[in-house]
Amino acid sequence: MRKTNNYQPVILAEQRVGHDFKFDPLTTKINIDASQLSAQSNKGLIDTLRQRLQQRLGVPVSIPLSLMNTLGKLCREDIEAITVTLAAGNDLDENGSAANYQLIHLEPGNQSHFNVGLAIDIGTTTVVVYLVNMVNGDIIAKASAYNSQIKLGDDLLSRIMAARDEKGLSELQSLIVETLNNLIRQISAEAFLQAPAISGVCIGANTTMVHLLLGLDPSSICREPYQPVVNKAGIVYAKEIGLEVNPLAPIYCLPSIGSYIGGDVLAGILVSGMHQEEELALLVDIGTNGEFILGNNEWIVACAGAAGPALEGGVTECGIRAEEGAVDHVTIDSESRVSYTTITNAPARGICGSGLIDSLAELFLAGIINRAAQFSDGRERFVIVPADESADGRELYISQQDINSLMRTKGAVNAALEVLFESVGCRWEEITRFYAAGAFGQYLPLESAITIGLYPDLPREQMMRLGNSSGEGARQVLLSNQRRREIEQIASRITYFEMNASNRFMDKYSGSRFLPHTNMEFYPSVKEKLAARQKG
Amino acid sequence: MRKTNNYQPVILAEQRVGHDFKFDPLTTKINIDASQLSAQSNKGLIDTLRQRLQQRLGVPVSIPLSLMNTLGKLCREDIEAITVTLAAGNDLDENGSAANYQLIHLEPGNQSHFNVGLAIDIGTTTVVVYLVNMVNGDIIAKASAYNSQIKLGDDLLSRIMAARDEKGLSELQSLIVETLNNLIRQISAEAFLQAPAISGVCIGANTTMVHLLLGLDPSSICREPYQPVVNKAGIVYAKEIGLEVNPLAPIYCLPSIGSYIGGDVLAGILVSGMHQEEELALLVDIGTNGEFILGNNEWIVACAGAAGPALEGGVTECGIRAEEGAVDHVTIDSESRVSYTTITNAPARGICGSGLIDSLAELFLAGIINRAAQFSDGRERFVIVPADESADGRELYISQQDINSLMRTKGAVNAALEVLFESVGCRWEEITRFYAAGAFGQYLPLESAITIGLYPDLPREQMMRLGNSSGEGARQVLLSNQRRREIEQIASRITYFEMNASNRFMDKYSGSRFLPHTNMEFYPSVKEKLAARQKG
Repeated sequence: MRKTNNYQPVILAEQRVGHDFKFDPLTTKINIDASQLSAQSNKGLIDTLRQRLQQRLGVPVSIPLSLMNTLGKLCREDIEAITVTLAAGNDLDENGSAANYQLIHLEPGNQSHFNVGLAIDIGTTTVVVYLVNMVNGDIIAKASAYNSQIKLGDDLLSRIMAARDEKGLSELQSLIVETLNNLIRQISAEAFLQAPAISGVCIGANTTMVHLLLGLDPSSICREPYQPVVNKAGIVYAKEIGLEVNPLAPIYCLPSIGSYIGGDVLAGILVSGMHQEEELALLVDIGTNGEFILGNNEWIVACAGAAGPALEGGVTECGIRAEEGAVDHVTIDSESRVSYTTITNAPARGICGSGLIDSLAELFLAGIINRAAQFSDGRERFVIVPADESADGRELYISQQDINSLMRTKGAVNAALEVLFESVGCRWEEITRFYAAGAFGQYLPLESAITIGLYPDLPREQMMRLGNSSGEGARQVLLSNQRRREIEQIASRITYFEMNASNRFMDKYSGSRFLPHTNMEFYPSVKEKLAARQKG
Repeated sequence: MRKTNNYQPVILAEQRVGHDFKFDPLTTKINIDASQLSAQSNKGLIDTLRQRLQQRLGVPVSIPLSLMNTLGKLCREDIEAITVTLAAGNDLDENGSAANYQLIHLEPGNQSHFNVGLAIDIGTTTVVVYLVNMVNGDIIAKASAYNSQIKLGDDLLSRIMAARDEKGLSELQSLIVETLNNLIRQISAEAFLQAPAISGVCIGANTTMVHLLLGLDPSSICREPYQPVVNKAGIVYAKEIGLEVNPLAPIYCLPSIGSYIGGDVLAGILVSGMHQEEELALLVDIGTNGEFILGNNEWIVACAGAAGPALEGGVTECGIRAEEGAVDHVTIDSESRVSYTTITNAPARGICGSGLIDSLAELFLAGIINRAAQFSDGRERFVIVPADESADGRELYISQQDINSLMRTKGAVNAALEVLFESVGCRWEEITRFYAAGAFGQYLPLESAITIGLYPDLPREQMMRLGNSSGEGARQVLLSNQRRREIEQIASRITYFEMNASNRFMDKYSGSRFLPHTNMEFYPSVKEKLAARQKG
């Protein structure tokens, strides 16, 4: 039975984590009284401006040749004030203040109250652009679209293959730049501004997406020596990649720490604040790949591994992406009656990742599948949406094969986490915070993910969804050079643990194919739920 | 009578002034063992390279996007070594070391023994390009040509007029860039290298020439507010102005301190070392404009003023530029017999500035003109080259009008210097060094210039020609970031003295129209010369 969906997707961090940051954006506007620039002995206009700005900022300011004439023209126009836009440089001092600035725009009048930038989350599937007010930090508008690179391949591996010659690489770069430019046009129109007014951009993305955006060859990411071209690209300029904002606008891609732990994951750490807390925290980002971060203010370890495509909607028989008409929440009562909701409440077209996780958990709690994740009565499938309720008159179901595929994902995640814990000599009970990051972290139903053992069973107040932490991390770094320094320090602090090199992984993997876990003691709340259902 | 010319024009400083500088060029090459860049845990290639370079240099190194892929390609080629070329940034620390570097080139193999740059002197008339070995400081080759901007105007003022619309400005920029590119092609061919191998450029030029090279509007240089667009342009990049060297090569124009005291003059101060000595020194650069610098290691004052076009060869009746067939040296004996030499010993075509100065001095010493610079016998002209010796069968002579025009130049120089001296409360006797800088400083006959009172009469060992000090200053700054800091400090130390605002100038001007000077006591050696001639 379809119910109305009241679920609001989380845009940015659902629970704002309590770490304030110093407001000191990537680009900043300063208003200058034009009379201060008029002829003083033999000083040049540009020299006078540079000196004023350097006095104000306390660090060197460089002025590109392309803007030198502009100032002369502006000054001849007999205006009262000039507003300069300055972009922080690559290098930051120990307090996270920029060691130098570059002038990137000059405009007549006092425009210092209006400065906008973009925080962008480039996912393999979805791209989200946030228009950010860099004067007060607010999000002015948001737009999202599929990553047009999908044309050349659904997943990372197929895109890396498509980029193996220069033509393919250049096409993939053009596709993502086109996606971004379309979103920029859309969001600019919505906010009634000209795209070149956008003065700075910060991007959260995985390592491969950053390579493709910058036109860097990603081939060594997935083959020997498994080494990206760059982890910390630093600031590049909009004109270098053809982004249609101010051509001199700095673009900062959040740093990665290798082929598998990208800026999107580091953004999760930054947003969670786990790198600053004494308490031990675990951050999990599950997609086709799973990334796992464990640590606190003293140490951070990371590992990554394939999680399988089960949640992406591409492999299960009725699976689709989280789009209009996707079944996203499912409950099954003790009489095996199903209720579900769909995205935008449209007639059901398929089941997305969160619907699948719900289905598996509910089938287990209802006793329809056993702890080994087999249908207790030996059936082949279980219908979630009857044919007469679906969009195309086709039954939507979950099959034993689908369940096996989900169990492989869950098993991989369990195994990775256990190997990671063992490696650092740490016990589950020591975890006092759990963060769900990434695209699935935003939408995955927490209770069901615990029920099937995908997430650990912790007191709920210790568990937190980070929302679109990649976008939120990008926003914070856009707004604070101190945050930029912080994420770069996080990157340098992380110890990466190579999962594939571990034999223990396969041992753990095979040992974790039960619901919720081989060792039920790890999942007290699931035990309670089962008991409650059996009672009820 | 024509004699053979043995005169060797001075290329760079005739007497190397005793100030050594720290060798630390604008661009530098470093050889890296390729094995040091191979995969280390999850580090990216670029990150590893950046880290190595930062460790080596002790300052941040930025790597432009355009070179990031190049490294990946080089590393896949299984080579043993990589050579990186690094360009020093704009900012220098207090020791004159670069505060940051940018990678500008990557090449296979160890090429660190070969790094070349250009020191360029852009004069209003003549452009000289020196190809400099940036590993040992040697000049490898030299080429010079007329500045093609002459097409649009002979002198500064007519070029500034020609640049008053954007088309004219852009044409003037193209012309100088074309002149430079032609010289670069010529010099590269001569040295058997490819022009893109040139990794850094340093330019000595007057304020207007720098504006035209950079495409900056020079109009306010010669009219209210008499303020250049920029004095210290800092580093720009070759691709920004279309110079056909490495497109990422830094181009540093020596700073100016206003419309009238350009980087060419500051180069003279730098090369002379007067800014570091306790002794008081006077530096004079006479062309159509005269620039005058007085000072020592504690203070420096400067002034500038029109000197008139007499020396340029364009206004005297038989005057030509210092080119093939120009009479450049003249002696007149007590019987009024003339001997002269010509440039390249070609048949005489006209008289250039140095020939005019010699003629005036010799006419005076021979008693043919009196102290008021009038022909004693009332004649109208004096023939230097008889018609049958000249190239076109025409007499070459110096007229009373020519003499008057030369006297105006001399008078302007005398007046400017006297006002300057008075302004700082300084007497002639305190000067212990005299430096002749600029194009005329290289070629002007010292003794004759003293005889006519254009130069002061000091013990000859205290007088020094700086040769092409603009080119030499550019070479030193190209080879030493410390020198760059020094010239920037000189620029900030100079007090500019506005000559045109001074009524005293006109008083002095009218009082200095005698040979060598109203007060003969200032010119003891000229007194002796006169006495000697009268005896002989």
